[in-house]
Order: sequence, then structure tokens, then C-alpha cells
Amino acid sequence: MKIAIAGFGAMGARFATKLQAAGNEVIGIDQWQAHIDAINEFGLKVVNDADEIETFQIPVYRPEALIDEEFDLIILFTKAMQLDAMLTGIQPLITTNTRLLVLSNGVGNVEIMQQHVTDDQILAGVTMWTSGLVQPGMIKVTGSGSIRLQAIGTAPIDDVVTVLDDAGLFATASDDVLTDIWRKAGVNSVFNPLSVLLDANIAEFGMMQNGMDLAQQILAEIKLVGEAEGVVVDIDGIMALVQDTMAPEKAGAHYPSMYQDLHQGRLTEIDFLNGYFATLGAKHNLNLPVNRLITEMIHAREDLVVH
Amino acid sequence: MKIAIAGFGAMGARFATKLQAAGNEVIGIDQWQAHIDAINEFGLKVVNDADEIETFQIPVYRPEALIDEEFDLIILFTKAMQLDAMLTGIQPLITTNTRLLVLSNGVGNVEIMQQHVTDDQILAGVTMWTSGLVQPGMIKVTGSGSIRLQAIGTAPIDDVVTVLDDAGLFATASDDVLTDIWRKAGVNSVFNPLSVLLDANIAEFGMMQNGMDLAQQILAEIKLVGEAEGVVVDIDGIMALVQDTMAPEKAGAHYPSMYQDLHQGRLTEIDFLNGYFATLGAKHNLNLPVNRLITEMIHAREDLVVH
Repeated sequence: MKIAIAGFGAMGARFATKLQAAGNEVIGIDQWQAHIDAINEFGLKVVNDADEIETFQIPVYRPEALIDEEFDLIILFTKAMQLDAMLTGIQPLITTNTRLLVLSNGVGNVEIMQQHVTDDQILAGVTMWTSGLVQPGMIKVTGSGSIRLQAIGTAPIDDVVTVLDDAGLFATASDDVLTDIWRKAGVNSVFNPLSVLLDANIAEFGMMQNGMDLAQQILAEIKLVGEAEGVVVDIDGIMALVQDTMAPEKAGAHYPSMYQDLHQGRLTEIDFLNGYFATLGAKHNLNLPVNRLITEMIHAREDLVVH
Repeated sequence: MKIAIAGFGAMGARFATKLQAAGNEVIGIDQWQAHIDAINEFGLKVVNDADEIETFQIPVYRPEALIDEEFDLIILFTKAMQLDAMLTGIQPLITTNTRLLVLSNGVGNVEIMQQHVTDDQILAGVTMWTSGLVQPGMIKVTGSGSIRLQAIGTAPIDDVVTVLDDAGLFATASDDVLTDIWRKAGVNSVFNPLSVLLDANIAEFGMMQNGMDLAQQILAEIKLVGEAEGVVVDIDGIMALVQDTMAPEKAGAHYPSMYQDLHQGRLTEIDFLNGYFATLGAKHNLNLPVNRLITEMIHAREDLVVH
């Protein structure tokens, strides 16, 4: 299968290595010139669990350099707030035969996709794989993961699941991928903003009795929106994932991505996590004061550190 | 007048110097042994606006060392959360002739006083004076201030106002000191917790558009409680004070006391600011989600840093 990974960050690059190794034709699309240049000149460097470095030759381009290319599948792996701009950038590459699988974090990505392509081209997914960026051109990969995906309209999905699964990505089709997406977004809506506002890493989170109460309040509001939208929000299941993430042998002094984004002066994904739920709730005349306030506080912090 | 200052921190010590200089007999009461020892051995050192050091001989004792003393006036200047313990400690010093003026920060202090003495002994006040602790036995004083006070019951107040005013403390009697107390608590309920949660000093606060929106939300909820309690909460007036405090020539890189408390691993006064309003609102069946959530977040942070 001919596959483009649009958003060639840590996650997109990890997926690219596995898909290419399984025999697919894979290229990357990104906007970060230093990263593009490093990969095209020296190859993509992948640091594995054993701290060995493997090199993959995967070409990466800016969208505008690919004008005459055509792809069977484009996997969207941008930050949620960059998804819209990426879709605009790759519009010339999208034909009626192109399917687009969105794996960006957060909720609300499908609605953004629908502003650019028809439902019958959209696959929506969620993945538990992780990956970290070390420096331009180099990623660090640890552990394993899985991916669940579903067609939003009538797009065929079985061949995509097979391609992903054959690449060792543990892919399965889901009848209810929105529940999976919301579950992951629920976990992220707890850890990401609270790590910023309480200045706590994942391991420290477990030391705060009140932190767990706050997690429950965030999720209780999301559950209300889920009921209005017909999406199951299993608070106990999400809290179990939260607890699991905090297990000292796993979490250590790791800070969630939102903490790192603000630390490096970047905008956050808050409007695709707590902010999305608060806005969606308002459409159903539901007030989500906890998620709304948390969203506003993160935006206030952005006001201060993003220039 | 024979006056004890119970809670001989930066503020209590500043008041003591002015009251003693005006001819009153003044002693301090405190629990911090290093501070007590430094003052009793070397005198209270006061660094003024011109960075000159003046020394005042004002004796300071632990409460239990004063068993046979009697005072016309005891001014309570502890942290709000230490007020109850201080009142218990000084109980043997309180006679029917003793009046007690509470100037601790925050709201709810009068209720605590009422658990220890009759209404007819209580004066409640609020002050805009400031003072900072440099080290045990040394304070730094800048600028000027004022004080407003009111009797809760039938205690005479005019002589106390005169003594304070003669000492240059710019004291006036108030018909509605609760409004003054709430106004100051309103300002503190904005700056104190938000400085912690948004990791911002006073000057940075003005750079956050969303910070001002959050301030408005905090105050709008406090106004609701004020309406139920018959206390006027003038949001515009409080916001003007907030804006004035942020003026760059005044604020600089100053962090509010709550930020400093947590930075030094101490419990905060949150339950006498936002937490007090949230709890009082609940008694009137008013939900204050913003103040409640902020209170819980500060307690979560306390869970992490106070040992």
C-alpha cells in the first residue's frame, strides 16, 4: 500500500518505520524544516528499548513538494490544533481513491476532517502506542501498543486493518471507536491540564488525595456529555487507566505532553480535550464548570508563555 | 494602653513598633522560637524604605510564659489557620476587660473569635498596611497603609481607634467592616490561588487576558454569596484594586503570600479565602464551582508540597 504519514512527529515516524519494514511504500509529510532536513540527509534515527540506534530511510517532504503524488492511505498524526492546516496543505494530494485515517490525539478531529473530505473517505482511530522525540531526526521508542479504527462513512476498512496489523501495530476494527477515543481523551483530560496547574509529574499525581477527587470531577462532567451524545464514558475504567499510568515502575518523573508543550512555549491541545467537552456540553445546555475553568486556566498560562 | 500583639510576624511586628513609639506598653506573643530568641537577644530589626536598619526593644513571649499578665487590647495578627490555636493559647490572658482586635487576613475570622470570647469583646478590622519578613528577628517595611475597624458587639471602640491613629496607623471606625474585609479577601482570592495555579507573579498576571476573565468569574461568585449574606461586593471596585496592584511600577516580580507559602512547604490560607466563600455559598444553596475547584486544586498542591 502507498502510504503518507502527515505529521511526522514521534508517533508518525514510529508508525512509518513499522509500515515500511512490512513492505509498504511510505513517505512522511511535515512542516518542521530542521526535522525534514535531518531525516533526508542522515535517515530517521530510532532509539529502541535497548538504547540501540537503528536508521530508516524514509523520505519526508513539505506538503507543497508532493504536488503530483497520489496515496492509497494518508495517516494524519499532527497535533490536533495543526490538523486543519495540514489538511489544507495536503488537499492537492487527496483524490477520490484516497482514504484518510486520523490518529491525532484528542476529540473533535473527525469534525475537522469533515470540513475537508467526505465521510466516505474518513477512517477514525485511536492508538495506545507511544513514542518520544529526542531531537530533529531522532525518536525514542519504548513498549508496545495497539490501534482501533472505524470507518465514519462507507470507506472499506478491512485492507487498512490488515496492513496495519501485518506491520505489527496490533490493529483491530472497532464498532464504536468514539468510545475508545473518548476513553483516551478522558485520561488525557485528567493528566495533561492537572500536571500543569498542580505542577506535578505523573508519579507525584498519585501522592495527591485531592488530585484523584479532581480527576473524578473532570470525568463526571465528561460522562454527562457522553450521555447527551450517546457515547459511553466508563469512569471506573478510565480511573483504572489513570491509576495504572501512575504506577511508579511505569510513570517515574514523566511529565505529560501538555506540560512539556507549555514548558517549551508551545500552544496546547486543551481545546481538543477538556475544552472540547465543555463546548460540546454547552450545545446540549450542559454546564461543565470544572472542564471550562481548567480550559481557561490553561489558556491563561498559554497567554503567558507562548510568544 | 497595654497592648499584646498575638502573632508577631511581619505585620504584627510593624504595628508593634508604631504603637510602642507612640507611648503604649507593647509586647509580642508568638510560637516561632528562633524569631522570639532573635528579638529578645538583639532587638527587633526593622529595615525601612531607605534600607536603614532601626532596632526596637519589644519583648516577645510564647503564650504560656505570660500567665499573670493582663492587657487592655490584644491584636490578633496570626495567619488565619493559626488563629484558633493562638486564641486557645492566650485564653488565660483574657479577662472581661480585655478587648480583642482581629486583623488576620481572610474571611471567617470573626466566627473563630466567637468560639473563644463574647461578641462584646471582639473588634474586627482590616488593614492595607504591608510588611515582609526578612529573617528571624528582622522585617522590611515599605509604603503606608490604613486600618478600618468595627465592634462586633457592644465593646467601646473610640479609644482603640484613637490609640491606633495616634500611632500613625491611619485608623478609622467603620460602619460596615465586613464589606472592607470582603473587598480585601476578594483581591486576595484572585491573586493568591491564581499565582500558584498559573505560576505567575503579580506583574505577569497583567499579561494574561484570560487571567482577568478568571478574576471576574471568581468575583462574580463571591458577589452572589455577598447578596445572600447582605454584604456588598463591588466587583468593579475590586477589579480596580487588582489592576492597581498589577501596575508594573508597584508589582514587579512579587509573588503573593500563598505562592510563597507553598514554595516553602507551608499550608495556605485558601480555606479563609476562596474556600470560605464556597462553603458559605453552599449554606445558602449556592454553587460556586470556580471557587470550589480552585480551593481543591490548592489543597491538592498542599498534598504534594507540605510534609
